[in-house]
Amino acid sequence: MTQTTSRPIVTAFDWVPEFARGLVRDLRVRWALEEIGAPYDTELLNARAPRPEDYLARQPFDQVPAFRDGELDLFETGAILLYLGERDERLLPAEMHAHWQAISWLFSALNSVEPVILRIVAYDIFNADKDWAPQAREAALGLCKQKLKRVTDALAGKDWLAGRFSIADIAMITVLNNLRHTDLVAEYPALAAYKRRGEERPAYQRALGAQFADFTEDQAA
Amino acid sequence: MTQTTSRPIVTAFDWVPEFARGLVRDLRVRWALEEIGAPYDTELLNARAPRPEDYLARQPFDQVPAFRDGELDLFETGAILLYLGERDERLLPAEMHAHWQAISWLFSALNSVEPVILRIVAYDIFNADKDWAPQAREAALGLCKQKLKRVTDALAGKDWLAGRFSIADIAMITVLNNLRHTDLVAEYPALAAYKRRGEERPAYQRALGAQFADFTEDQAA
Repeated sequence: MTQTTSRPIVTAFDWVPEFARGLVRDLRVRWALEEIGAPYDTELLNARAPRPEDYLARQPFDQVPAFRDGELDLFETGAILLYLGERDERLLPAEMHAHWQAISWLFSALNSVEPVILRIVAYDIFNADKDWAPQAREAALGLCKQKLKRVTDALAGKDWLAGRFSIADIAMITVLNNLRHTDLVAEYPALAAYKRRGEERPAYQRALGAQFADFTEDQAA
Repeated sequence: MTQTTSRPIVTAFDWVPEFARGLVRDLRVRWALEEIGAPYDTELLNARAPRPEDYLARQPFDQVPAFRDGELDLFETGAILLYLGERDERLLPAEMHAHWQAISWLFSALNSVEPVILRIVAYDIFNADKDWAPQAREAALGLCKQKLKRVTDALAGKDWLAGRFSIADIAMITVLNNLRHTDLVAEYPALAAYKRRGEERPAYQRALGAQFADFTEDQAA
């Protein structure tokens, strides 16, 4: 994993509200690390207090996760997944066609699918009390369903987006989970089955357990 | 560029409405190819007609660009930029720290910055006639400005996101251009200067000219 003997470090939160548990993005990195059995350390940040002053140098948007491997700092879950994938074929196939299909789908998850899903989340959760939210949601819903249908269609005859499991699936399945407060994914049974297939993987379950176990501020509150 | 002697192929549209000209995403790929002086062919699609039946196999979301290099098909501008960057150091530094900073910023442009910018675009352009749009815009504006400020802050003392010019700048500058109908970027003078610096590059100008030259259906209309 590293040139040195140190473990990689993932930043995460020591507390988030109920609705965000299992959705915070350090889960993606934890999942990838669990898939390859790579031990890691977490550096827990307080979500309700300002981050340490030097944190912006590691994560310019003041979010989690940031990732450190020896002397190397990375941010953005897409970049971290790619970094891990380039180091382990179980996360990113070496064969050229599958390799670039996985990378194409990794970007799809983050740039074609997640943005419209997060619009639905913005209306349903962050602006749920606004009288304009239902109409704004309605205006975005068609595009959201179109994206879900496209992903479903692309999965025809395949268990995973790039043929076999890869970082593309880690990104896509965690992106889809942002709709867990709705029945939208269930409208596409093959997509729902794909999501379930990912979430049933032992590595996902371990990653999820580790994220929840790090919400240590519950005891303090 | 390729294992064969064929040129890479970029798909683009032969017509788009005025407001979209200079924003269609094939521009990103053209810009990268122009930076390294790599000749390419375009395959023009009719934006007002259904795409050919086999196009979804190349671009599952039915958008442009798709990219073909010999026998390899890619989609998503992020993936195509990364592919080109891995083949030419002028687009993606080989030195490890700059390399992963560029990739982190590439994902930032597409996953942290573009989604909130496209919400503003959705309200200002695609839902301009809706009475709920101004309130929805107002609710997204703070987040948009925060992202613009974070990018501005990260550029302090630097001409380009990863120290020297890279695919991260191609992504970020073309993402920021989606706000050209507003004064939002101008509120951050260093960000506006960065955007101008990119758009003044001869390779950008050639790419932009090539996209406009391919809007050949103007004559037919």
